Amino acid sequence: MLGLGHRSETVHRSNLSAIVRELHEHGPLSRSELGVRTGLTRSAIRVLIGELTELCLVGEGTAAALGTPGRPSSLVRPNPLGAIVLGIDVAVDSVGVAVVGLGGEILHQVRIDRPRGRISVDQTVADLVELVNVVWAKAPGREALVGIGVAVAGLVRRRDGLVYIAPNLGWRDVPFGAQLSEALQATVPLTVANEADLGALAEHRRGAAIRAENLIYISGEVGVGGGVIVDGRPLAGVAGYGGEVGHMPVNPNGIACRCGSCGCWETEIGEGALLLRAGHPPGGGRGEVDLVLQEAAAGVPEALNAVDNVGRWLGVGLAILVNVFDPEVIVLGGLLGRLHPLVLSTVEAELDRLALQASRGLVRVVPSRLGGDASLLGAAERAFEPMLSDPFGWAGVRTAPIAASA
Amino acid sequence: MLGLGHRSETVHRSNLSAIVRELHEHGPLSRSELGVRTGLTRSAIRVLIGELTELCLVGEGTAAALGTPGRPSSLVRPNPLGAIVLGIDVAVDSVGVAVVGLGGEILHQVRIDRPRGRISVDQTVADLVELVNVVWAKAPGREALVGIGVAVAGLVRRRDGLVYIAPNLGWRDVPFGAQLSEALQATVPLTVANEADLGALAEHRRGAAIRAENLIYISGEVGVGGGVIVDGRPLAGVAGYGGEVGHMPVNPNGIACRCGSCGCWETEIGEGALLLRAGHPPGGGRGEVDLVLQEAAAGVPEALNAVDNVGRWLGVGLAILVNVFDPEVIVLGGLLGRLHPLVLSTVEAELDRLALQASRGLVRVVPSRLGGDASLLGAAERAFEPMLSDPFGWAGVRTAPIAASA
Repeated sequence: MLGLGHRSETVHRSNLSAIVRELHEHGPLSRSELGVRTGLTRSAIRVLIGELTELCLVGEGTAAALGTPGRPSSLVRPNPLGAIVLGIDVAVDSVGVAVVGLGGEILHQVRIDRPRGRISVDQTVADLVELVNVVWAKAPGREALVGIGVAVAGLVRRRDGLVYIAPNLGWRDVPFGAQLSEALQATVPLTVANEADLGALAEHRRGAAIRAENLIYISGEVGVGGGVIVDGRPLAGVAGYGGEVGHMPVNPNGIACRCGSCGCWETEIGEGALLLRAGHPPGGGRGEVDLVLQEAAAGVPEALNAVDNVGRWLGVGLAILVNVFDPEVIVLGGLLGRLHPLVLSTVEAELDRLALQASRGLVRVVPSRLGGDASLLGAAERAFEPMLSDPFGWAGVRTAPIAASA
Repeated sequence: MLGLGHRSETVHRSNLSAIVRELHEHGPLSRSELGVRTGLTRSAIRVLIGELTELCLVGEGTAAALGTPGRPSSLVRPNPLGAIVLGIDVAVDSVGVAVVGLGGEILHQVRIDRPRGRISVDQTVADLVELVNVVWAKAPGREALVGIGVAVAGLVRRRDGLVYIAPNLGWRDVPFGAQLSEALQATVPLTVANEADLGALAEHRRGAAIRAENLIYISGEVGVGGGVIVDGRPLAGVAGYGGEVGHMPVNPNGIACRCGSCGCWETEIGEGALLLRAGHPPGGGRGEVDLVLQEAAAGVPEALNAVDNVGRWLGVGLAILVNVFDPEVIVLGGLLGRLHPLVLSTVEAELDRLALQASRGLVRVVPSRLGGDASLLGAAERAFEPMLSDPFGWAGVRTAPIAASA
């Protein structure tokens, strides 16, 4: 924060951070573009690029700009193998692991489906260690590992990564970060966060909401989660439990929610609500959802009615969020992303009816671009944070890789 | 932001800013406390304090700590006359003007009631010029003026201070900032913002939510407005229309709202809702509200029922906000602040019933400490911003005072 005083010795690190962050978030840039974006002088840029090249974090080369006449300009590029992270996603019915390089390139990725329902923490840790070994076996340059990020379908305490509750996994008060870190014998920071918060971060950096500084990501599957970015910064709340839009009490006449409350948004727009109204077993999972979508496409009235109900309640909840946040983009992920083309006109009509004209006119409702990988990629982005904030300091830790052979 | 590169010449200004901001927000501090808070070295602090003393922004003196044995320690203090701002509040039934000094001291303040209803922009500007002249006549050191902040009971576009709509004033698309700035012949920046957003800022800096970095301020009067602080930063939204909690559609079976929507929170917890249910004329204003509160105190069933209804719907809407923001404090202002002791138990019960346990357990619901002055003082705080961000740059403008003799 600019509000803090700067010792002159920290300025240098801060400048290195600025360069690496620009390259990581925006991709290759010319030196002059870097100067414009960071406010640094030409000579400062030259010195800093030199240092970052020595740290193997950036490289320089000419751009192969097809169709552009004239001499190709030299671009500074993030080195994907100069710093890598592990992204890990613990979803309700699958777990995924990815190795992501600086600049956002996915180097390796693997995901396995798991049965829905209560899967123990120990089993999950064992599954993840196995998956990490799989991607590790193929990963080049694992000595470049700088962090591990983990997305969990539950409420996660920001301070220490404690999973306060993950109802669809059946977890409560689980020190998951500590447990996984130990099992992976990790020697780099491991951070745990809510899946939708991380999905918002990924869609912001790499997906459907690039360039939007104010956005809301809503991910509907078994549960409905949300992540919010305000002026470019993730909203966490005092303990990290913010963004729980799925449990906004939107319907005073609504049904009981698994959270213990009544009339939560999730009870109207979640998978269970869709299936129940369409006459399918509410716990039926993805296969049943596919059937409902097929029926809706075929014009089956019950299915159409179920989809329409989701659309209307989606509009009501989004009207609340539009008036509260005045966002530029709302990104619908998971089930809601699949429903997007079917419900958009209903949602737009409800927003016209219920949201303040001033904010309503500024917002677009779009489907996720990253789909099922949003949380995984967001976890990777979060894992880069400490390194991006102090690339120089992090260069030191790259001698101690994690040993995932436990 | 740390993410931006720092030219070494900007670091010095940033360090000056850090010192002044700490003193403005927290009051007198010892040099060593300043060092801890800003991360600056002892010698850097000495040099910076010297410069700020020359700019008349700070002074040093011993603390008269009563009852503390030993040698009194020297404290660095913000100089209230070294930089002053004008805070201006355009409420629905009054306008106020204050001169506030660095550190938050109110040097002069005046407020006049005005009839509710549509008061023209021109009349409002004329009233404000007159009030400014009144406070100016008594203000010392008007050459120290660094900014003017204006709170308006309406939606205000962040970019240029355009009042998009102020329904209770009857304004629409009013370039109020430009108009007032011209009438005041202002030579310092004049910023306009929503009253509740500014109320939140004031309660955060000087009122009921000091030390809370995540808070929601809800101000109920004719309309219901809201302001949100996320991780210490005001939430504005993409255009500045964020925080409009009064228009969250909370009741699908609700009545029409003056905003054009239905079932807005305001239609259940606003002044009109209270009066209507208590059997009083809904447009009756403050006098009628006083009667309802007296009746409630005397146990009149209709009044008690009306208060209880506000309490229950207040709980529903707060449950939404608690789940979305995970705040530390919710501050109730205006009418809702007056109702606080009467409705707190109902609100707490609704939060227990409807909000997620994780976030609910962390939040306190408290009455405003600044009362009717919250927006006015928030406007003053906002007016200090450019100077706090660059005290050195602002020292230059202090030769050209505004001439309010138009």
